[in-house]
Amino acid sequence: MLKETSTLTVQVEGTSERPVGIAVVGLGYWGPNLLRVLSENFDSEVRWICDLDRERLQRFRRRYTGARTTTRIERVLADPDVDAVIIATPVHTHYDLAAQALHAGKHVFVEKPLASSSALADDLVGLARMRDRILMCGHTFLYSPPVRAIKGMIERGTLGDIYFISSSRVNLGLHQRDVSVIWDLGPHDFSILLYWLSELPKSVRAVGRDSIVKGIADVAFVTMTFASGIIANVELSWLAPSKLRRTVLVGSERMVIYDDGSSEPVRLFDRGVVYRDPETFGEYHLSYRSGDVISPRMESYEPLGLELSDFVRAIRSGDNLEFHTALARSVVTLVEAADRSLDEGGREVVLDLGASGGSLQGHQDLAAVV
Amino acid sequence: MLKETSTLTVQVEGTSERPVGIAVVGLGYWGPNLLRVLSENFDSEVRWICDLDRERLQRFRRRYTGARTTTRIERVLADPDVDAVIIATPVHTHYDLAAQALHAGKHVFVEKPLASSSALADDLVGLARMRDRILMCGHTFLYSPPVRAIKGMIERGTLGDIYFISSSRVNLGLHQRDVSVIWDLGPHDFSILLYWLSELPKSVRAVGRDSIVKGIADVAFVTMTFASGIIANVELSWLAPSKLRRTVLVGSERMVIYDDGSSEPVRLFDRGVVYRDPETFGEYHLSYRSGDVISPRMESYEPLGLELSDFVRAIRSGDNLEFHTALARSVVTLVEAADRSLDEGGREVVLDLGASGGSLQGHQDLAAVV
Amino acid sequence: MLKETSTLTVQVEGTSERPVGIAVVGLGYWGPNLLRVLSENFDSEVRWICDLDRERLQRFRRRYTGARTTTRIERVLADPDVDAVIIATPVHTHYDLAAQALHAGKHVFVEKPLASSSALADDLVGLARMRDRILMCGHTFLYSPPVRAIKGMIERGTLGDIYFISSSRVNLGLHQRDVSVIWDLGPHDFSILLYWLSELPKSVRAVGRDSIVKGIADVAFVTMTFASGIIANVELSWLAPSKLRRTVLVGSERMVIYDDGSSEPVRLFDRGVVYRDPETFGEYHLSYRSGDVISPRMESYEPLGLELSDFVRAIRSGDNLEFHTALARSVVTLVEAADRSLDEGGREVVLDLGASGGSLQGHQDLAAVV
Amino acid sequence: MLKETSTLTVQVEGTSERPVGIAVVGLGYWGPNLLRVLSENFDSEVRWICDLDRERLQRFRRRYTGARTTTRIERVLADPDVDAVIIATPVHTHYDLAAQALHAGKHVFVEKPLASSSALADDLVGLARMRDRILMCGHTFLYSPPVRAIKGMIERGTLGDIYFISSSRVNLGLHQRDVSVIWDLGPHDFSILLYWLSELPKSVRAVGRDSIVKGIADVAFVTMTFASGIIANVELSWLAPSKLRRTVLVGSERMVIYDDGSSEPVRLFDRGVVYRDPETFGEYHLSYRSGDVISPRMESYEPLGLELSDFVRAIRSGDNLEFHTALARSVVTLVEAADRSLDEGGREVVLDLGASGGSLQGHQDLAAVV
Repeated sequence: MLKETSTLTVQVEGTSERPVGIAVVGLGYWGPNLLRVLSENFDSEVRWICDLDRERLQRFRRRYTGARTTTRIERVLADPDVDAVIIATPVHTHYDLAAQALHAGKHVFVEKPLASSSALADDLVGLARMRDRILMCGHTFLYSPPVRAIKGMIERGTLGDIYFISSSRVNLGLHQRDVSVIWDLGPHDFSILLYWLSELPKSVRAVGRDSIVKGIADVAFVTMTFASGIIANVELSWLAPSKLRRTVLVGSERMVIYDDGSSEPVRLFDRGVVYRDPETFGEYHLSYRSGDVISPRMESYEPLGLELSDFVRAIRSGDNLEFHTALARSVVTLVEAADRSLDEGGREVVLDLGASGGSLQGHQDLAAVV
Repeated sequence: MLKETSTLTVQVEGTSERPVGIAVVGLGYWGPNLLRVLSENFDSEVRWICDLDRERLQRFRRRYTGARTTTRIERVLADPDVDAVIIATPVHTHYDLAAQALHAGKHVFVEKPLASSSALADDLVGLARMRDRILMCGHTFLYSPPVRAIKGMIERGTLGDIYFISSSRVNLGLHQRDVSVIWDLGPHDFSILLYWLSELPKSVRAVGRDSIVKGIADVAFVTMTFASGIIANVELSWLAPSKLRRTVLVGSERMVIYDDGSSEPVRLFDRGVVYRDPETFGEYHLSYRSGDVISPRMESYEPLGLELSDFVRAIRSGDNLEFHTALARSVVTLVEAADRSLDEGGREVVLDLGASGGSLQGHQDLAAVV
Repeated sequence: MLKETSTLTVQVEGTSERPVGIAVVGLGYWGPNLLRVLSENFDSEVRWICDLDRERLQRFRRRYTGARTTTRIERVLADPDVDAVIIATPVHTHYDLAAQALHAGKHVFVEKPLASSSALADDLVGLARMRDRILMCGHTFLYSPPVRAIKGMIERGTLGDIYFISSSRVNLGLHQRDVSVIWDLGPHDFSILLYWLSELPKSVRAVGRDSIVKGIADVAFVTMTFASGIIANVELSWLAPSKLRRTVLVGSERMVIYDDGSSEPVRLFDRGVVYRDPETFGEYHLSYRSGDVISPRMESYEPLGLELSDFVRAIRSGDNLEFHTALARSVVTLVEAADRSLDEGGREVVLDLGASGGSLQGHQDLAAVV
Repeated sequence: MLKETSTLTVQVEGTSERPVGIAVVGLGYWGPNLLRVLSENFDSEVRWICDLDRERLQRFRRRYTGARTTTRIERVLADPDVDAVIIATPVHTHYDLAAQALHAGKHVFVEKPLASSSALADDLVGLARMRDRILMCGHTFLYSPPVRAIKGMIERGTLGDIYFISSSRVNLGLHQRDVSVIWDLGPHDFSILLYWLSELPKSVRAVGRDSIVKGIADVAFVTMTFASGIIANVELSWLAPSKLRRTVLVGSERMVIYDDGSSEPVRLFDRGVVYRDPETFGEYHLSYRSGDVISPRMESYEPLGLELSDFVRAIRSGDNLEFHTALARSVVTLVEAADRSLDEGGREVVLDLGASGGSLQGHQDLAAVV
C-alpha cells in the first residue's frame, strides 16, 4: 500500500514563547518511543530523562545529548525549566509520581491506565484541578486514524443506531507479573469504546482464567451493557495462536470491521436488516439489504506524535481536556469493575454512573491533523 | 484446492437384508438435503415423503419416483415397511412427531435440536429406551472432517490441556420468528464443544440483545465454565457484516484455529508458553515457544452422508448410540440454560450435572470413513 | 456474505409462441449443468439428449423425463421440433457437430472454444451466416457479474486509460490429454480480455513447459501487446499449490482487482500516479494519489442462466450476435497463436488484424438482468 | 505472531583484533539503515560518513558522534584506519566509487546492483581480485529467513525437481528517474532466483510499458528459461493497487508459496501430480496427491545485520566470497539482458553462459546464525 509520509504539523498558539520543558520518567517498553517522538519537530524540549536503572540512563544520554539524566525524581521536579512530566513507569507507581509532579506544579502526562484504582485516579484528577494543571493519560488509540475515522462515522450517523460491539485483542504474550490481562489489554479497548460511545456502561461482567500463572488471569471475556441498550463483548488474552486486534460494530444502517494492523484497517459494510412493523402488515417482515463495502483511505501519521502535540497544545492554551480526563478516569473504573467481576466468577458489577448517567462530559475535539 | 471426490462407502453388517425403509417428514430448508443424500448409495430406501404442503410434495414426488407422498403422518407410521422416520420439521413439532413415531415402533432421526425443552428431550430419550428404538439427533457437525480432526488432536493429547475455547458463529440472517439466536445457532457450537470435551459445563451465562424484533434476541455472547477449569465463549449473531464460523482452542501444548468454510479449515499452531515453577527459581519464569503452523489435509466427504449411514448402521447393529444421545440431550439442556440466562440479563445459570458430574457417557466411536 | 437468491426473469419477445426446442449433445463435465439450467424457467424445452454413452443417457433420461435420448446425432437433427442444438462435447468434435447442425438448419450453441482452429471457426461462422442461423459460443464468463461490472467501469471511464492487465488462472488439475493448458484455460481469460477491451492484440508470445506429460504444456506465461499500447500477461497452469483466478487492471485513474471466487470479487482502488509535464516545470514531477477502496455489491444470478436465455432471445429476435461471434472467433485465433508461440519457444506471433485493425465489431449489449 | 527478538551473535575469528574500520558513503534511502545496523553490536566501527549533502551529514553527525563526516570521498580513502567502504549511492556512481576504493586498498560493499553494466561489474570484480580485496554486493534478500528456508528445502530435495517459478513484485511507487523498473526491482527477484537455482538462465524475454514517464518502463513481465528446463516468470511494476511480493515454486514433489511481508512468509504444500508411464499401462495415468500445508517457523533476525556481519567476517577470514560475487555479477548480466529485451519489444536475448554453462561456482555457505 502506498505509505504517505505526510509531515505532521500542529498549530500551537504563541509559538514565539520558549519550548515547553519536558521530563521523561521511565525508560521501559514505552519510554523510548516517547523520547523518540518528543525529539522530533515539537514545540517542546526534553530537559530530563529519569530512570532507576543507571545503565539505561547512560545509553539514552548518548542519544539525547540535550537532556540531563538522573535516578532521582526530586531533581527533576525541582527544576523550574521543567513544565511537564511524562510518566511511563509501571502502573502501581503512576499515582505517587503523578501526585508528586502535580504538587510540584508540573503538568502531567501519565501512561495508561491513569492509576491502579479509581480512588487514586479520582485523587489525581482532583489534585490536577486544584493545582490548575493539565493531567493527561496516554490513551494513544484515541489519536489513531482508524479509531478516529470510526468516531466520525458514528457522529455523522453513518452506522445508524449501534446495536452491539464485539472485540478481540489477543496475541501470544506478554504476561504481566502483577496484574491480570484486563489491566494490561483492557484499557485499549475500553478507551476506544468510551471514546466512540461517550458513555460508560451500566454494568460489567468478566469471566476468565489464570491458565499459566496462578492468580494472574491471562484470558478474559468481558461483557458490558449500556443504558442506551448497546452491548459489548471484549475478548482479551495473552494466549492466542495469532495476533488479532479486531472490532466489529453493528449498527442499524451499516456495519464496520476495524482490524488494526491490516492494510485496510476500517471496512464499512453497507448492510443491514430492514424491519417493517407488524402493525401495518399483520405480521412483521424482515428484508436484508446488501450494498458496497468501502475501505476509506486512512490519514497517515503517527498517533503518538499527535497525542503529545495535543498535550503541549493543552499546556499552551490552558484547555483542561475535560472529556479526555473523564474518559481516562472511566477507563480505570471499568478495568477495576471488570477485574472485580472476574475475581468473583463473573458476577455482574453495576457501575455507579453518578449524576451524568454515565455520559462523558466535555468537548471531544481532540487535536486534528492540520 | 484439490477437491477429492472420494467415494464414500460404509461397512454395514448383513447387507444381504433388505434395505432399511425410511420416511422423510418435512420438506423445508433441510429436508431436501436429507432426501438427496438418502437417494445416493445407501443401504436404505425412501418409502414415504410427508409434508403439509401439497405443492411441495408434488414437486418432490416427480424427483423421487420410488417414494409415496402424503400430508398425513399416520399413513407413514402405519406402514410396516417403514423402519425409520427422519424428522426435519420446525423445532416445536419435534417432540410430538418423534414420540408418535417411537410409539409406532419406528427408529427416529430428528433434526437438531432434539426437542424444544430438556424435559421433552428426556421424555423422548426415555421413550426410545423403553421401546428399544434408535433415537438420533442430526448434529451433522459431529461428522464433519475438521471437527473430527480436532477431536482426534484432543484425544491424542496434541493440544495438551485445553485452557479455553473462543468461538464466533455470525452472519447476516436468517432471523427465526419464534426462537432466539441461541436456539437457532447455539446447537451447532454446543454440540461441537460437547463432542470435543465430553463434558457438560457447570454454569452458563448469556448476554444478548433483541436488536431488530422485540423479544427475539439476534445476538448473544454465551460464556460457559467447566468443572475441569476450561472456559468457553461463544458469540452467536444473525447480524454481522460478513459470515464467520471460527473457533480457537488454546491448549497447554498447541493451539488450533478452526475456520469452517476456509480452504484450510484447521490450522494447528505449535505455540505456547512454558512456565517454570517459582519453587525452583525463586521467581517463576515464562518463555514463549513458537514452531510450525500446520494445516492438515482434510478428508473429503459429505458429513450428512456419513451421519445418515451411521443412523442406518445403528439400526442394523442395535447400537444404542448412548454417547450421541447423551450429547443431544445435553445440547438442549445447554441451549435452554443459555436462553434462560439471556432472559434474566446474564445471570449465571448453574447446570445440574447429576451423577456423572457432567461427563458424557458411552463410547464415542462415530462411524469412520472406511 | 448475504446470498440473494434473486429470481432471474428475462424478457423475451413473443412469448406466446411455442417454446424453443432444444437438443443437448454431450453429457460430460459441462452438459449436466446446461441441462439443469435449461430445465428451469426458460422459454425453451429440451427435446433430445444425445451422448455416445448409453449408461449416461439412461441416468439423465430418468431425471429429464420430457426429453428423448439417443446416441445418434442424426436422429436429433432430423427432428423438426428441434430449433437449436447445444454442443458440449470435446473440442475436436465441435466443428463437425456444429457444421452438421447448421446444415440441418438448426441454431447452434457450442461450448468454448468455438473450434479447434481458426480456419474451422471461420468456416462455422460463414456457414451460420449463409444459413442465417444463430451461432453462439459458451463464453459464460461474459455473463458473470464481476466481469460485467468491470466492463461497465471501463466503459464509463472509471479506470481511465488502461495501462496493463495481469492475470493468473491456476490450480491443481485437470490435465487434458490432447491439448495444452492454453487451449484449456486460455479461452476463459482471452474471452474476458477481448470483451473488456473490444480489441484483439497485435502480437502474442507464450513460454511454457510440459512438466508432467511430454508434449502437453501444463504451464504457460502468455504476453500480449495491443495496438492501443495495452499489454497483458496471463499465467495459465494446471500445476499450482492453490487455486487462483485473479486479474489486475491498472488504469490511469483507478485500478481493479478481480478475484473470482472471493466473497468480494471486484475491488476498485482509487489509486494512481499523477504526472506533471516536464515542459511546465523543467523536470517532470510525479505524485501518488491514494483514495478509498470499494467492493461494489455484485448482482446475484447464475451466469449460465443468463447466457442461455440470451441464446434463446437471439433465436427469437433474429439478433445475429455479431460482436459475440467475432469475439468467439478471436478467442480461437488467440489461443492458436499463443499455442504456436509456445511451440516455437516463445517467438512473437503477429496477428493478422485485417481491415478492422483488431477492433471487435458489433453491438455489445449482452442481455441485461431485467 | 510471536516476535522473538533473538540476539544475533556471529562468530568472528580473532576478535581480539581492533574493530574493522568502516566508512559509509551515501545517506539516501538505504544509507541510514546501514548506519543504524553498523552501530549495533558488531566487530566494526564507523569512522566516516560521507555524502554530498552537508545538511544531511550534519543530521547524522549528531546521531553517530563517533564518526567523522565529509563531502569528499578522497578524505575517507586517505584514512588508513578505514578498512572498508560501504557504498549506498545511486547506481550510476557505483563503479567509480567502488573502483576508487579498491584502488585505495579498501574492501568494498556496494548496494545492489553491483554496477550499471555487466562490463563495469566485470571490471570491479577483476580489480578486487587483483588487489586481493573483498567485493561484496548488498543482496540482502539472500540473508532473509524465508529465502534461506526455501534454499534449504531445494537443497534437501523437499520440492523434488523444480518445474517453474512464478513471481510478482509490485506496488504503487517509487518511480526511478533514470532507470526502468527492471533495474530497480529486478535485482531482488533475480538474486533470489540465482541463489535458489545456482544457475543462470540461458535466455530472457521482457515485455513492458512506459505508462507514466516516456522511456522509463514502469511495468515489465520477464520470462526466463534455464538449461535445466526450469522456466520463470517475474512480474515487476511500480503501478499496482496493492503491494505484493509473492513467489510460487512448483516442484515435482511439493510446492511453495513465498509471500514476503506475510506473517507466514513460507507455506509448503505437500501437493503434486503423480504420473504413471504409458509403457506400463498402455495409456499414461495421472493422479493428484494432496497432503498437509506447513508454515515452517522462521528464524527471527534482521537480514541486514547478518549480511554486514558476513562482510566483516569475510574481511577477517580472507574468504573471497566467490559464489556471492559470481551471483552479483550475474544479476547485472540478467538485468541488462532483460532491459535490452524490453527495449527490443520482447525479443529473446540469449545469455553467454561461458565455460560454466551458467552454473554459479563457489561455496554457498553464507553466514549462518550461530
